[in-house]
Order: sequence, then structure tokens, then C-alpha cells
Amino acid sequence: MSLASERNDIELDEKIKEQHRIDSLNLLLYMMLLITTVLTVWMFKHRRMRYMHETGLALVFGLVVGALIRYTSVPSAISHVEVKAVSHPTYNGTLPPDYLWYHMKRKRDPVGPLVENRTYAYRLTGEVEDLTGNQFAQQATFDPEIFFNIILPPIIFNAGYSLKRKFFFRNLGSILCFAFIGTTISAFVIGGVQYTFGLLFTYKPSLLDCLYFGALISATDPVTILAIFNDLHVDVNLYALVFGESVLNDAVAIVLVTAIENYAKLYATAADGFEAIAFLKAIGLFFYVFCSSFLLGSVMGCATALLTKFTHIRDFPLLESSLFLLMSYSSFLIAEAADLTGIVAVLFCGICQAHYTYNNLSDEARVRTKDFFELINFLTENFIFSYIGVSLFTFPKHQWDFAFIGCAFISLFVGRLLNIYPLSWLLNLRRNPKIPLNFQHMMFLAGLRGAIAFALAIRNTYSVGRQTILTATSIIVAVTVVYGGLTTQLLLWLGIPVGGEAEEDETTGLNQMQRTRPPNATGARDNPEKARLVRLWSNFDTAFMKPLLTNARPTLLETLPMCCHPLARLLTSTQQLTQDTSNKYDDDGEGFLEGDDASLHGAGGDSGSIHSNGRQMTAPDAAGATSPPPAASHM
Amino acid sequence: MSLASERNDIELDEKIKEQHRIDSLNLLLYMMLLITTVLTVWMFKHRRMRYMHETGLALVFGLVVGALIRYTSVPSAISHVEVKAVSHPTYNGTLPPDYLWYHMKRKRDPVGPLVENRTYAYRLTGEVEDLTGNQFAQQATFDPEIFFNIILPPIIFNAGYSLKRKFFFRNLGSILCFAFIGTTISAFVIGGVQYTFGLLFTYKPSLLDCLYFGALISATDPVTILAIFNDLHVDVNLYALVFGESVLNDAVAIVLVTAIENYAKLYATAADGFEAIAFLKAIGLFFYVFCSSFLLGSVMGCATALLTKFTHIRDFPLLESSLFLLMSYSSFLIAEAADLTGIVAVLFCGICQAHYTYNNLSDEARVRTKDFFELINFLTENFIFSYIGVSLFTFPKHQWDFAFIGCAFISLFVGRLLNIYPLSWLLNLRRNPKIPLNFQHMMFLAGLRGAIAFALAIRNTYSVGRQTILTATSIIVAVTVVYGGLTTQLLLWLGIPVGGEAEEDETTGLNQMQRTRPPNATGARDNPEKARLVRLWSNFDTAFMKPLLTNARPTLLETLPMCCHPLARLLTSTQQLTQDTSNKYDDDGEGFLEGDDASLHGAGGDSGSIHSNGRQMTAPDAAGATSPPPAASHM
Repeated sequence: MSLASERNDIELDEKIKEQHRIDSLNLLLYMMLLITTVLTVWMFKHRRMRYMHETGLALVFGLVVGALIRYTSVPSAISHVEVKAVSHPTYNGTLPPDYLWYHMKRKRDPVGPLVENRTYAYRLTGEVEDLTGNQFAQQATFDPEIFFNIILPPIIFNAGYSLKRKFFFRNLGSILCFAFIGTTISAFVIGGVQYTFGLLFTYKPSLLDCLYFGALISATDPVTILAIFNDLHVDVNLYALVFGESVLNDAVAIVLVTAIENYAKLYATAADGFEAIAFLKAIGLFFYVFCSSFLLGSVMGCATALLTKFTHIRDFPLLESSLFLLMSYSSFLIAEAADLTGIVAVLFCGICQAHYTYNNLSDEARVRTKDFFELINFLTENFIFSYIGVSLFTFPKHQWDFAFIGCAFISLFVGRLLNIYPLSWLLNLRRNPKIPLNFQHMMFLAGLRGAIAFALAIRNTYSVGRQTILTATSIIVAVTVVYGGLTTQLLLWLGIPVGGEAEEDETTGLNQMQRTRPPNATGARDNPEKARLVRLWSNFDTAFMKPLLTNARPTLLETLPMCCHPLARLLTSTQQLTQDTSNKYDDDGEGFLEGDDASLHGAGGDSGSIHSNGRQMTAPDAAGATSPPPAASHM
Repeated sequence: MSLASERNDIELDEKIKEQHRIDSLNLLLYMMLLITTVLTVWMFKHRRMRYMHETGLALVFGLVVGALIRYTSVPSAISHVEVKAVSHPTYNGTLPPDYLWYHMKRKRDPVGPLVENRTYAYRLTGEVEDLTGNQFAQQATFDPEIFFNIILPPIIFNAGYSLKRKFFFRNLGSILCFAFIGTTISAFVIGGVQYTFGLLFTYKPSLLDCLYFGALISATDPVTILAIFNDLHVDVNLYALVFGESVLNDAVAIVLVTAIENYAKLYATAADGFEAIAFLKAIGLFFYVFCSSFLLGSVMGCATALLTKFTHIRDFPLLESSLFLLMSYSSFLIAEAADLTGIVAVLFCGICQAHYTYNNLSDEARVRTKDFFELINFLTENFIFSYIGVSLFTFPKHQWDFAFIGCAFISLFVGRLLNIYPLSWLLNLRRNPKIPLNFQHMMFLAGLRGAIAFALAIRNTYSVGRQTILTATSIIVAVTVVYGGLTTQLLLWLGIPVGGEAEEDETTGLNQMQRTRPPNATGARDNPEKARLVRLWSNFDTAFMKPLLTNARPTLLETLPMCCHPLARLLTSTQQLTQDTSNKYDDDGEGFLEGDDASLHGAGGDSGSIHSNGRQMTAPDAAGATSPPPAASHM
């Protein structure tokens, strides 16, 4: 592949990214309008004003924003070529134009001498490789923007919203290590292997394409594995490691993809010899993008918490749920519009919403948001997998390069190998409840690829390289998902203790848990390293974040020093002051704090854990409560 | 406008409809895949088989269907023109091609002699009128297919699902009269007036365009009015009339639109003198489309009821809710794919789901589906109104014909006048609780236009005529929605009794109801005409439909004659037989049957009505329960 062609691909990427940014801005515009409407409606209701219905408000706000856009925005550059049936078009750009305008001159009516001119606009849909293909097949594919902007966010958000934070935080160090270092190793190993064997392939991939493939295929999908873990009640630490790794490595993988794109751009535009600088810049960008997205998501989550704490919007659960939903989705869109990664933002937004906002919600809104995201998550996830199946046959742009695909399986294997085992060895040097070898095997085998990898691959299929990547990703996802059904056998074979037949019987399940859990739970607590990290954050969280962001006791008045009391009073809601002290922070059966407090005060740690299980039984998703972490419990 | 041009527009319409049909088929395909997945997953869970996770199943089914499509479907005709930068394109069709293929020859790299050829596909997006406009503005518009296929169905479904059937059925005769005859009068009056004054307009609309406009603008939107009715507890019969009319007239209006399109097509292709036949055919088509869509929707609703009755899917509420949602949405898509109207299908599907399926759902799924649709309805509705506001300024294809818009307001007024008053006079000849004059005034003034009219108008904006219609519709919707805020004043001014200050206080609200309701309720029952119609259906429903479709008592064994008992046993679920007899048919506080049974047996009718109110208080949406029909109670 020539340099010119590669540069052209990079420019085309840029163009698509710009398009995506505009799409996101666009959706964001409507989300902001809806948020404004919801808040205004609430204010009207709250003050018992009845001038206008919410739809009227939505319309009026829409009019204002529409006028602003119309009369303030500068026309941006859209290229188009006018194609006339009589003269040939002239266009000298290196990239295809965004639009073609087709002038038709028609003489239709046999009676009269009518000649009519009409101009039709045509929008760029992509590169044509195969000039055959029937209409239905071409239609059975959706706009990748729909995948990325509509289907993906709820899946990721739900992962964060239903994250069992207790065990996640207990294993935070190991999870971060696997997610950051492991995913990077995996991406570069896969990219490297693919590039090395590139000579064998029909299509010679560029290094950029190989690394891009390496990064996106490193996003593992926990869905299948976790559903089975859930059914079988495997060890909670193994669960936390597998779930935590796969949730975070999606985030890391997608930022890596962005960083690699940036590197390619920097490299292509820089003069020779500046590779090192481009590389360093790309690393800098990686951390900038990750941290900014993380911050953005957290800030949006905390903003929702503040909004739900200091307004009385909880009196109107429908408005409350709408606000919750709109704020969460906005965090994705803001990040995408600001050239950060929405996936990371919406993931951490979900975690913050679960940790803070959830406590301020009315009971109705709690059930509603949980149910809503569970249902949407179930449908979107299955939709993606259906789509992968159908599109393997109908997507018109597949590039079947079997050498590439075969090699990909090998590189995946090697990449996962060099990720899990060396890192586990490294972690086991410090970790107290060591990661036993059978857990390592299980983690190695749990690296299935799924919805995220596919959604990343289908985003850009303009060039042949990207089309090859999409095909390979589809095949890999299909194979690993079907293989996921073997997990039950694998668990047995690896001798990993499972909770046995408790699955259907809730009461015996609970007993089972009381018997099987404590050893693991206390095991984790013996680790002084981990405890310090968790305790540091937990103290800050209890003393400042929760009193500030939620309606739970203690208030800031109790936790802040005397000098800050005027400020503290301002930041304490009336509800927070007047409520019963016994009604402490309700963590949706998380028990993260409870368990932790217990260990801090040296009280019986086990009771905390059992207590939290007892709570779970009353939570809306009580059906799955006996399984250690009902996060991904689909039904 | 010349005949040739008009014919061309009709052909373009056909082409768009074909495109829409394919889009619907496409979505339908995925819905069917998801339904199959849900049912298979349930079966696996039910039989405790654990071979494969649901995502794996979705993928496998997808693969099968994808292969079927790939290897069996015949390529349909997509036209494309190859545009080469060096030679001029040749294309002799009368309609614009679906795709343009643009061949680019590029010499990019200044170093090497590389010349590369790439071909890009461009898809038809519409006629270009204004050759300016900036990118953001063009972007702030969505694909009308998204409106029609994604945003509209939940709004309509929710109208049916939350319909208060009791008072709806009481006033069924009048509602049907207003919906069918009234909407037709309105459509033809508006179309006629617009065509008559056509000479005044910049753009001379064709009769077809005028009738099209008349039909789509006849779809009234009850949202604003009903929210206020709800807050103020107006008379239940007035509520039922306004709600029933506006729900059904959407359905009638959209079928009228289809019939008019069909008429135009028939007229255009027929030789002269066959107008009468074309007209009759169009009327025939109207009834065919309406009845088939109605049947399709009802059948899908009943199928869901049967599925939920005879499978034990209620053990897995998430699967149950998913199935419910997918089946309902499928009714829309099947109708659209079969050239019927999805709006009608999904409306009646919603009514059936509420009437039968709701009773078979688990408690969790009841709350979940109600909440889900309420939330989605709230968001989509406000989204549409925001969009109308924004697009008034940013939509690139607006045609501002102020004479047309001004005239439209007058014709709307006249159309509504000739709809409400003459029909009320006619109905009052037979109706027992007559429609008093102040109710008629209120109904006249309640004819706001909203989301449905807009969604119909934005479906097709390829021609200038349709663009003029869209602009006029947007303006009308904007004006009437903002004016809707005056309803409270109107009610006072017309002296219509309202429930007073009961709004915030639920307990006094209930008392209020007990005081204000009985006169109306008994008034309606005095009408022998109505009672006969309702009684006939009610008897059949109680004796056959409910025992067959729901888990409620009595069973078919009790209602069918002895000879049918073997069949009846087959159609009775174990759950139905074993459940407590006291647990009678739960109608979600509807009281339609209870009230009716009470009146049939001559027992105190009032108690039935109050009883149903008492029930409502325990229903999930109890917050709005004191208002007579909490159907559209948005918060």
C-alpha cells in the first residue's frame, strides 16, 4: 500500500470523524433541549404555574435554538459536484465530495413540449468494491452511526450502572493493571503479529491498520461468561476480575484506537525523523483523552446527583427518570462532540449515577431506571448479535481474507497469553489472595470478543483495509460467542468452585452464599495494600462526596470542620436534615461502604457481607440476588 | 403544474414508498429474530438447558437468516449511474437513479507516478431547491424514516395501551362517528378550500396535494388538551369524546392519506372517464386498509396474549417484557411492510395488549411495560416538538408560502366547524346524554394539531408541493400547541364543570369523584342504544375472548356449552384452573366489565364505578388515579 493511499485513508478517516462529531453535536442539541424542557416543566409544576404544556415548551425552546443556529452559525465546507447529464463534471479534490448534485433534463409528456429541469442531491455512502449485490441485502445493513450513537451507549452505561462496586473496588489494583497494561500489550502483540504475517495476505495491511485492528479486537465482552458465572455462583473475586477487566478494557481499547489514529495522523503530517515525537504525543493524547472522558462522565454523574438532590424533581418520578436518562446520554454525546471518547464517559457516568444519584431518586424512579436499562440492554445486545449474524452474509462490503482471519485467531491467542499470565505473575508478587493458576486459565479463556469490538469495526468501512478488519472481527465474535457455551465445562475442568445447584432455589442459595462467601471476603480484607487504597478513597467519599451529592446522612455539617459550617449548611438539603438518622445511605445492596466501615472499625466483616445480601433481597432485581453479583443477570 | 410533472411526483412517491417498505421489512427481520431468540431462550431456561447464551442464539439465528437472504432473494432493481470524471454520464430514466457511482482518478503523491482509481457510492437524498445552506443546519435534520419508524409507533401504542376503555366504549358510537365521518369531512373541506384559493399562492398546488394536506392536517393531537383535562378533572364523557376522537382520527387520517395517494395513482394511470371507478376503488381501498390494519393489530395483540398465557414466560419478567415490546412493534412493521398502515395496527394492538395480555403478565412486567412506554412516550413526544421548533429554522427544504399558510388556518377553522357541530346535532338526535353546546365548543377548540400531522408531513419532502405542506404543517402545529395553554381559560369561559382544586390532594380528589361522577355514569347507562352495542360485545368478550386469551376466571370450561369441553380444556391453562376464584379478571382499574356487569344485573351501577376508582389507587400509576382517566397523565 502506498504512502499516498495511506494518507488518503487518514484524510478520509478525519472526514468521517468530523461527520460523526457533527452527528453527535446534533443529537446533543436535542438532548439539551429536552433537559431544559424537563427542568422548566418541573419548575412550572413546582410553582404550580400552568401557562404551557411541556410540548409547548419543547417547541418554544426548539424555535429559539433553531433561530440561533440559523442566524449565527458559519457555513462549514461541504463539497459537492454538480453532475449534468450533458456536460461532464469537474472536480479536482483528492477526497470524494460529500454530495453529488445530479441535474436531470426531462422531456416526459408525449403531448406537450415540456422540458423540465430538476436537481437531486446524493450523499456519499462509501467506497464501492463489489459492483453487484441486491437491494434487500444492501438494505439489511444499518448506518454505523446508529450503532455507535444509539445502540452502544445503553450497553456501556448499564455495565457501569449495574457494576457491583464492592468487589470491583476490592480488586481495583489488579483490574486497572489488566485493563491498562494488559490491553496495551494485547493490542500491540496482535497488531505486530498481523503486520509481520502481512505478506501472506491478499490485502497487505498497513501498520496503522494492524494496530487499529489490534486495539479494537482487544475489547473483550463479558456478557456470555458473566451470565454463566452468575448462574453458577463462581468465586466473587474471579467474577470481579473478569467483569472489571472486560468493562474497563473496552474503555482502554477505544482510547487506544483513537490514540493510534492520532499517531498515524501526526506521523503522516510530520517530516521524517519525528516519529519519536509523534509517538510521545500519541501517548500524551491517550492519557489526556482517557482522563478527560473519565472526568466528564463523573462530572455529569455528580451534576445529576446535585440536580436530584437540590430540586424537588423527585416529586415527579417521570420527570426525574427522564432527567436521569437525558443527563447520562448527554455525557456520551458531549464527549463524542469534544473529540473525547463517549464510551469512557458514559461508563463512569453510570458508575457515579449508581453510587450517588441512585440514592436521591424516588423509589419509583429507582425501579424505573433499573428496569429500563436492563430491558434496553437486553434488546440492544441481542440486536447487535443478530445483526452480526445477518450482516456476515448481507453486508455488501465484506472482504474475505482467510489468511488474515486465521492469523488473527493465532495473534489473539498469543496476545491474551502475554497479557494474562505475565501480569498475574507480577500481581501475585504483591497481591495477598493470590490469583491461583486455575483463575488465570479461566481469565485467559474468558477473553471473548463481542458487541464493542464489532461496533468499533463497523464505524469505518470506507477503505478495503477497514473492510477486511470488519470481516475478521465479525468472524471472531461469532466464533468466540458460540464457544462461550462451553464455559460451564471449562469451569468444571479447571476445578473452579461453583455454588452448585443453588440457582433456582433462593433460600438455599442464600445459605449457600453465607457458607461460601466469608473465606473470600475476609481473604480480600487481609490485604493491607488494597485496604489502604480503598480506605483512602472511602474516607473521602464518606466525609465529603456522599454528604455533598446525596440525601444520605451524615450531612456535611457533621463531617466538615466547624469553620466550613455556613457553606456546609448551604450544601445540605432540608430533606437530608429532616430525615430519620436510621435511614442511612442506601447503597442498593452494594454493601461497599458498610462492608468497608465494618472492616475499618474492626467489627465482624462477615456480617456486613451477609447484611448486604439481605438487602439485595428487597431490591427490585431480587430475583437474581442470591448470585454473588447480579450485575449481568439477564433474567 | 403540468400533468407530466404530477405523474412524475406520483412515481417518485411510489419509489419512496417502496423504499419505506424495504426499510420496514428490514427492521421487521430483526424483530422476528429477536422474538425467536426470546422464545428460544425461554424454552432453554424452562427446560434448564444451558448450551448457549442468548447472544449466541441471536447470532446463530442471524447467520441462518443472513444466509437465506443472501442465497435466495432475487436482486431487485436499483438504478445507478456511473459518473466518471472524464466522461459524461448517460442515463435516460425519467426518475432520478437511486445511486450515483463516482469514479475518481487521483494522482496524489508528488514523488511517485501513482494513479489510483476508486469508486464511491452516493445515495439519493432528495431534490435540491436552495443551493445554499450550511452543514450544521442540514445536519440538524433527521431521516424522516426515523420519525416514522422509530419515534411515532411508541406514541401511538401508548395511546392505545393507556386508553381508558370504559368510557371509550360507552361513547363508542359518537367517537366512531366523529373519527370516520368527521375526519373525512375535515379532510375534504380543507383540501377543497386550499384548492379553490390555489390561485393566490406562489406555488399552485395540485388537487392531490391539497387533499393530501387536508387529510394529514386532520389528525388532531390530544396531548396538550388532555394533560389539562387531567389536571382539572373535567367531565368524563367530554374527556372520552376528545380523547377517543383524536386517537382514532389519527388512524383515519393516515388511511385517508394512503387512499388519496392510491386514488391519484389510479387516476393517473387510468384512461379518461374512469374517474368514478378510480374513486370507488380508492374508497374500497380505504376500508380494506383500515380493516386489515385493525385486524392485524388485534391479531398480534391476541397472539401476545396467547403466548403469555400458554408459555410460562412470566417466570422471567425480562423475557416477558421483551416479548411484549417486540410483538407490539412487529405489528407496526408488518402492517407497513404489507402496504397497510402501521399506525392503525399498533393502536389496536395497544388496546388488545391492555385488554388481554396485561392480565397474563407478571406484576413486574406490568409495572415495567407501563413505565417503559410512559417514559418513551414522554421523551419521544417532547423530542418531536423540539424538532419542529428547531427544524422551522434549520430544515433546508422549507417552502414559505404565506398565502398557503394563511389560507390553511381559515380552512382548518371551517373544516373543524363543519365536522363538530353538524355531527353533534346529528348524534344528539339519538344520543341520550346529549352533547351540550359548551362541550361542542370545547371539542371544536380542542382540535390542535401535533406530532402525527408533522410526522406525516415530513415523510415525503421530495417535491416542492410536499415541502410547502411541511412548512404549513410545522407552522400550524407550532401555533396550535402554544395556543393550547389557553385551554384552562377556555374551560372557565365555556362554563364546563371541572373538579376544582382536587388536583394535589388525592384523598379529597377521590371524594370529589364520588360526588361528581355518578350523574354522568348513570346518565350514559340510561341510553338503550349504547347499552345494546356495548352489551353485545361485552357478552362475547366475557364468554369467549377473555377465557380464551387470559388467565382470568371464568374459564372456557365454565362459559362454553358442554359439547365443546374437550376443546375448552385444551385452551385452559393450568394456572387458570388452579388459581383462586376470588382473583377475578384484573382490568387495571378499568372497571369496563365490572361496571357493565353491574348494569346488566341491575345492581347499583355507581358502586361499580367507585370500585374501579378504588382499584386504581393501588395501580402503579396511582399518582394520577384521582383524575378521571389518567391515560395521558404525564407526571
